[in-house]
Amino acid sequence: MMVGANGKSGLRLWRNARLATLADGAAGLGIVEKGAIAVRDGLITYAGPEADMPAFAGQGAETVDCDGRWITPGLIDCHTHLVYAGNRANEFEMRLAGATYEEVARAGGGIVSSVKSLRAASEDELVTQTLPRLDALIAEGVTTVEVKSGYGLDLDNEKKSLRAARRLGAERAVTIRTTCLAAHALPPEAKGDKDAFVDLVAKQIVPAVADEGLADAVDGFCEGIAFSPEQMARVFDAAKALGLPVKLHADQLSNLHGAALAASYGALSADHLEYTDEAGAAAMAKAGTVAGILPGAYYFIRETKKPPIDLFRRHGVKMAVATDSNPGTSPLTSLLLTMNMAATLFGLTVDECLAGVTREAARALGLLDKAGTLEAGKSADLAIWDIERPAELVYRMGFNPLHARIWRGQ
Amino acid sequence: MMVGANGKSGLRLWRNARLATLADGAAGLGIVEKGAIAVRDGLITYAGPEADMPAFAGQGAETVDCDGRWITPGLIDCHTHLVYAGNRANEFEMRLAGATYEEVARAGGGIVSSVKSLRAASEDELVTQTLPRLDALIAEGVTTVEVKSGYGLDLDNEKKSLRAARRLGAERAVTIRTTCLAAHALPPEAKGDKDAFVDLVAKQIVPAVADEGLADAVDGFCEGIAFSPEQMARVFDAAKALGLPVKLHADQLSNLHGAALAASYGALSADHLEYTDEAGAAAMAKAGTVAGILPGAYYFIRETKKPPIDLFRRHGVKMAVATDSNPGTSPLTSLLLTMNMAATLFGLTVDECLAGVTREAARALGLLDKAGTLEAGKSADLAIWDIERPAELVYRMGFNPLHARIWRGQ
Ligand SMILES: [Zn+2]
Ligand SMILES: [Zn+2]
Repeated sequence: MMVGANGKSGLRLWRNARLATLADGAAGLGIVEKGAIAVRDGLITYAGPEADMPAFAGQGAETVDCDGRWITPGLIDCHTHLVYAGNRANEFEMRLAGATYEEVARAGGGIVSSVKSLRAASEDELVTQTLPRLDALIAEGVTTVEVKSGYGLDLDNEKKSLRAARRLGAERAVTIRTTCLAAHALPPEAKGDKDAFVDLVAKQIVPAVADEGLADAVDGFCEGIAFSPEQMARVFDAAKALGLPVKLHADQLSNLHGAALAASYGALSADHLEYTDEAGAAAMAKAGTVAGILPGAYYFIRETKKPPIDLFRRHGVKMAVATDSNPGTSPLTSLLLTMNMAATLFGLTVDECLAGVTREAARALGLLDKAGTLEAGKSADLAIWDIERPAELVYRMGFNPLHARIWRGQ
Repeated sequence: MMVGANGKSGLRLWRNARLATLADGAAGLGIVEKGAIAVRDGLITYAGPEADMPAFAGQGAETVDCDGRWITPGLIDCHTHLVYAGNRANEFEMRLAGATYEEVARAGGGIVSSVKSLRAASEDELVTQTLPRLDALIAEGVTTVEVKSGYGLDLDNEKKSLRAARRLGAERAVTIRTTCLAAHALPPEAKGDKDAFVDLVAKQIVPAVADEGLADAVDGFCEGIAFSPEQMARVFDAAKALGLPVKLHADQLSNLHGAALAASYGALSADHLEYTDEAGAAAMAKAGTVAGILPGAYYFIRETKKPPIDLFRRHGVKMAVATDSNPGTSPLTSLLLTMNMAATLFGLTVDECLAGVTREAARALGLLDKAGTLEAGKSADLAIWDIERPAELVYRMGFNPLHARIWRGQ
């Protein structure tokens, strides 16, 4: 086979690298000190010690000498509300100047403001406004991003949001997973009738987006200020009937036993979880529901109750770490900073943080067979770093040591 | 006069911009909605409403249409320990894994580790290792950076640090201000004799760096774990005798009345200030000593006592906001994120944050006559932003909306 200097053969090899493979079951980060990764047609064919690489894996490959740099799986942000219009810096400013939440609401603030802005924006505008946020994530080695709807809150605008999300994956070299979060908040036109709106979501919006293939999963916000466990169950029943996996914003501000509800539906993940109790953690462990740890929102809205990390550890609940990027409670577009917050604010270890934005984030998206670790058969999504040790990715704040990013082998 | 298309005439004009001039005495951010900035030979000749610009200011100038973008003064990071070797990610990792401070110290951690690394590094290595951190600041529109020594702790290594700091200003288009922080910690060879080390600092190190023009100011760490107010006074006396302005790391972990001590020496700034009392705030106000607000260290080491922002407001103490970038307690290289922390953690308003990284930071460096605001006569240090309102610079986390950065007119 000829060497494809321009990579046309589809064979590529990264050698002389230190690998944090994050391989499932490996100790710690699954470190390989003198490693190599061979890729064919966008898939990893070998990841391990360079000395043990089978000859076929590297033969004829376009080869990159990594000069001892570290390679991790491409990062995965498994919980974002990245598609939105406008921003809510004005509310942030008002609150710092002393305005109460009521005053902000009376000035048109809160989630209603994001709904209004999103409805007024065209699909093109949504894409245009979202790309800089996506680019910020990509610049830090992110190769997969989950994007939720939830500011449309009616059929057309939820579909518009999800189409915009899908288009992000055409505009950039990144894997996009979409989630229908129509059960995010009550739109103004519902006039306070939550049950009627849940009906609309369960009987119309979720079936329609499923029919058009616009959503890879269905999510909801289970909270006193949003929807009850019973209401969420109706949305989940609809999703399940359509074959869509579910996930949940659960137990963020109070314990409605959202984690247990999510687990009872075999949810991919339950996220936030500040108020989750031991029964919830045990149920998640049993169901294999991943805990989505979202320190950005905790930090930004000055919460004081932390998610029960020790309970999750004790029960063996897997923990993902994500930005929750959104205009109201987490205008955060750095997954590196998010890891620092998870460590500094919640005490996650370096290994937990790194697993949380790779292997466990993939698990939370139902993508662990395709991404999240450096293992043969997976997508060649790599982040190559100018660091001496992986802990630096968690330790620094506002610093990006990315050397190169590879998505599907390119 | 001919138009210098390539700017050789030294005349440049930015028009169709929204200005946050931060002019001293102006209300709020000193906003000019339809503004222009004219520059000759690196200095601002006019900054104000485009309609009021005198004809001479723009005539023959190379002109940039800003399309309504916002322009602020170039940002100023007035408190950093940017020059260091290695990093302390390993200690961070150990502590997250449950190690006590004692265990970290026994493993060679703590400031001693940074002293050891710095002493082992050549001046060239220091510059090379520091440039990526400086570049991270520059990428966010920073045009002036203060850099302290303090990991050398003997004459040769303090001088090496300060020479490396000065060289940063030759390597990049940025203004560097150097500060001798020899009174940062006790080096191992001092064997616990603080008074003898303070003698060395006051009688040998400070005079030598002054003699060689290596330091623009003198700083110290006044704390139980560092030096007493009496010891700091001896260092300050030496600085004053040599005509060098002083500043102080004060009242971070306990109230040793460091703020009042700094004020009594007419210090440019007293920084940290978590434990400063009302007498300290009053003394600072009277002396014109700026309060250096450093939320990065507060966040990173999980402090719970906040600096008395309301006292500073009440007494009219000016507040600067800085990264305190250092390997042990604030591995932070984003001044935008620092503003978010000052707002989120300490409740500074948007206007206070933006003044804190421009006008008040310039004041804290004794540079207010040359930088920190958009006013005629000052250096044309500009940051041009892709934002709708200045609050976005404080509200977002891990996002850089810088459109262009101008240093001394270029
Ligand atoms: Zn969310
Ligand atoms: Zn400091």
